[in-house]
Amino acid sequence: MKIIGEKINGTRKRVAQAIQDRDSEFIQDLARSQAEAGADWLDANAGTSPSREADDLIWLIENIQAVTDKPICIDTANEKALEIAIRAVKKTPMVNSISGEPHRLAMIPIVAENKCPAVALALDEQGVPKTVDDRLRVVGNLLKETRKAGIEDDQLYFDPLAMTIATNIESGNIFFDSIRAIRKEYPKVHITCGLSNISFGLPARAHINRVFMSLAMQAGLDCAIMDPNDRDLRSAIYCTELLLGLDRHCLRYTRAFRAGAFNK
Amino acid sequence: MKIIGEKINGTRKRVAQAIQDRDSEFIQDLARSQAEAGADWLDANAGTSPSREADDLIWLIENIQAVTDKPICIDTANEKALEIAIRAVKKTPMVNSISGEPHRLAMIPIVAENKCPAVALALDEQGVPKTVDDRLRVVGNLLKETRKAGIEDDQLYFDPLAMTIATNIESGNIFFDSIRAIRKEYPKVHITCGLSNISFGLPARAHINRVFMSLAMQAGLDCAIMDPNDRDLRSAIYCTELLLGLDRHCLRYTRAFRAGAFNK
Repeated sequence: MKIIGEKINGTRKRVAQAIQDRDSEFIQDLARSQAEAGADWLDANAGTSPSREADDLIWLIENIQAVTDKPICIDTANEKALEIAIRAVKKTPMVNSISGEPHRLAMIPIVAENKCPAVALALDEQGVPKTVDDRLRVVGNLLKETRKAGIEDDQLYFDPLAMTIATNIESGNIFFDSIRAIRKEYPKVHITCGLSNISFGLPARAHINRVFMSLAMQAGLDCAIMDPNDRDLRSAIYCTELLLGLDRHCLRYTRAFRAGAFNK
Repeated sequence: MKIIGEKINGTRKRVAQAIQDRDSEFIQDLARSQAEAGADWLDANAGTSPSREADDLIWLIENIQAVTDKPICIDTANEKALEIAIRAVKKTPMVNSISGEPHRLAMIPIVAENKCPAVALALDEQGVPKTVDDRLRVVGNLLKETRKAGIEDDQLYFDPLAMTIATNIESGNIFFDSIRAIRKEYPKVHITCGLSNISFGLPARAHINRVFMSLAMQAGLDCAIMDPNDRDLRSAIYCTELLLGLDRHCLRYTRAFRAGAFNK
């Protein structure tokens, strides 16, 4: 299981403030704590207007790189900002995200040229597909474009986009079945997702998100955009990998236990 | 998800003591708290030698029935004790358990005659099968016997028998795949299991057991032999049923939340 650390995101109020104030210490603390908790990439989302986005991304990237050598996940919908910001990274970054929407399709050549892994959203200009088959069709269309650009399937982390269960009780099943369908049809691609949309509008959301992650992993999820400092989520990952036979000799599990990863 | 409350089990030291001392209060407290926590059946296991087992079972049954009208799950490997004890129950009990072993096959006529639901272990005189296919074959053989006796498939709760993951990292996958195989071949039968064997020998077992249950539910588990007073397990059940689309309008989940079922 790969983890994209989600915390450096300018759509969060406190992070937006830090970006505006050029509060390096705040951003560096977020970078350091996520890196130490085991994030594989650190998301950097400026959350600002197109005119400022490239500058803000570069400032975020420089601050992250000042405290950790973890690769960065450049989180933008703006290919111009991506093109500029990507020059600031020291290690091959991940790009978050391409999709079938025209402005995000425009990022494909940059992903190809820089040989980046990329998050790929299973949606197009018509929005989020309603059914499993529709998601599979959108993924197939997007793969035609990425393959044409010379991007290997195993560089892509498809997000089948979980909808909220409070408005459609089938949202979980549609998501899990979409993962299985994508994995079956395109065995080399990875699957990622955010963990909080599913529980929107319900109480005690952390409980739902945690179980959601385990069930999604059983379906084939192998990456998540999450808070790597969430101890409960991390212990659920250790347990799920163990139970799915992905932790030889139970080594990661027992090491995590000895390192105090489990609450109680 | 149906719950068989596991606590009244004479193989546990404190319960054995209570049985020996005829400590009604202790047994009645266990019965009351499990019933209040939502157990669908209350397991009664005397854990004593064949010469005393029928008497001890009857004493347990009378004490349970003194405080709750939940049906009892008579837990014995001894068809003579079952035959006597079953006369003491007021409501149709569950029988725990039949299997392909000769002494447990001998309980099938009693199950048929009393029109009981029954736990059915996926093993025979050769022990626990090693592979998914072997488990499926043992289940098929057992179903030949139960069908011959006139027992409906939907009265049976098959336990595919989870082995410990510490000695075989594939134990989880074998268990989940066995559930799927049994469900596919025999769609009317139920699936049950105990939750603790999987984590034997590892630390922080409650974490593993909880995730194991969610993953097993996704594979098709619809009953568990467990401690109904375990708040973490119960909240995991609410979340898993919600995410699998089994909780219309999220009603059980939100009710459980309002009733304070979730920690933190």
